[in-house]
Amino acid sequence: MKQIETIKEGKNFKAVNVGATDEVIQYELPLGPNVVIPGKVFVGQALGLTGADMSYQTLVPGQDGGFYHTHKTHEEIYIILKGKGEYQVDGQNIPIQEGSVIRVSPAGKRTIRNNGTENLTMICVQYKANSFAEGDSPMEDGVILQEELKW
Amino acid sequence: MKQIETIKEGKNFKAVNVGATDEVIQYELPLGPNVVIPGKVFVGQALGLTGADMSYQTLVPGQDGGFYHTHKTHEEIYIILKGKGEYQVDGQNIPIQEGSVIRVSPAGKRTIRNNGTENLTMICVQYKANSFAEGDSPMEDGVILQEELKW
Repeated sequence: MKQIETIKEGKNFKAVNVGATDEVIQYELPLGPNVVIPGKVFVGQALGLTGADMSYQTLVPGQDGGFYHTHKTHEEIYIILKGKGEYQVDGQNIPIQEGSVIRVSPAGKRTIRNNGTENLTMICVQYKANSFAEGDSPMEDGVILQEELKW
Repeated sequence: MKQIETIKEGKNFKAVNVGATDEVIQYELPLGPNVVIPGKVFVGQALGLTGADMSYQTLVPGQDGGFYHTHKTHEEIYIILKGKGEYQVDGQNIPIQEGSVIRVSPAGKRTIRNNGTENLTMICVQYKANSFAEGDSPMEDGVILQEELKW
């Protein structure tokens, strides 16, 4: 079973290495005694995230998400890294492949399947829905410093 | 210049296609009249995100982020998809490659560079720092439905 490696940590950051996309299948997410989800790993705790969580997951050909789920307060983004499949929300099927990105609101009844011939690997990020104020944006929140880069 | 394609949209979701990782270099982020950042695209608006924003960016060999920046209230996650380089926070350099993931707190003075020989492509996700309550987690927020999957 693969483990997340810490690269470096400081006052304002933490960096980890999850491994190459093809290695995600080597993770196991513990669910209970002798119960694991193969090919899935959460990185939020390892990174010390304070307003989101994030997972990598690989589904092998023919595998599906196993169940429908919704959320109480979290919006999710699914980011497809590799492979082909179908994402389903509220009974609507969406073809997915490398570069597909899906936003799902908390109430959306969702699942996914790999109906292709190679492994399907994705990232899922979740955070509080509606936590951005009107006009909240990367440009308004970011502060560019007038300081020469030093490497 | 490449554009984000909409795949499908419904009450509780929106799905877009950004394109393959190698195509991110074809985007241009408009900054002002006749000023663009090549190889960068934000997807938050296209997806209708309500508590985050997200970008894809490619730096060519030798290219750096151009400036240091901090944030007022957003925590960022940098997810390296391809290539090699260095990420810098508060003067500390972090080697990065496919599978590297970095959490940066709002106050972290950050930049990045591609010091490798191939394109460096990453995703950056930002959301409100400290917006998760104590114990907030995917498991507690998620609701698994007892309903058979229909494809």
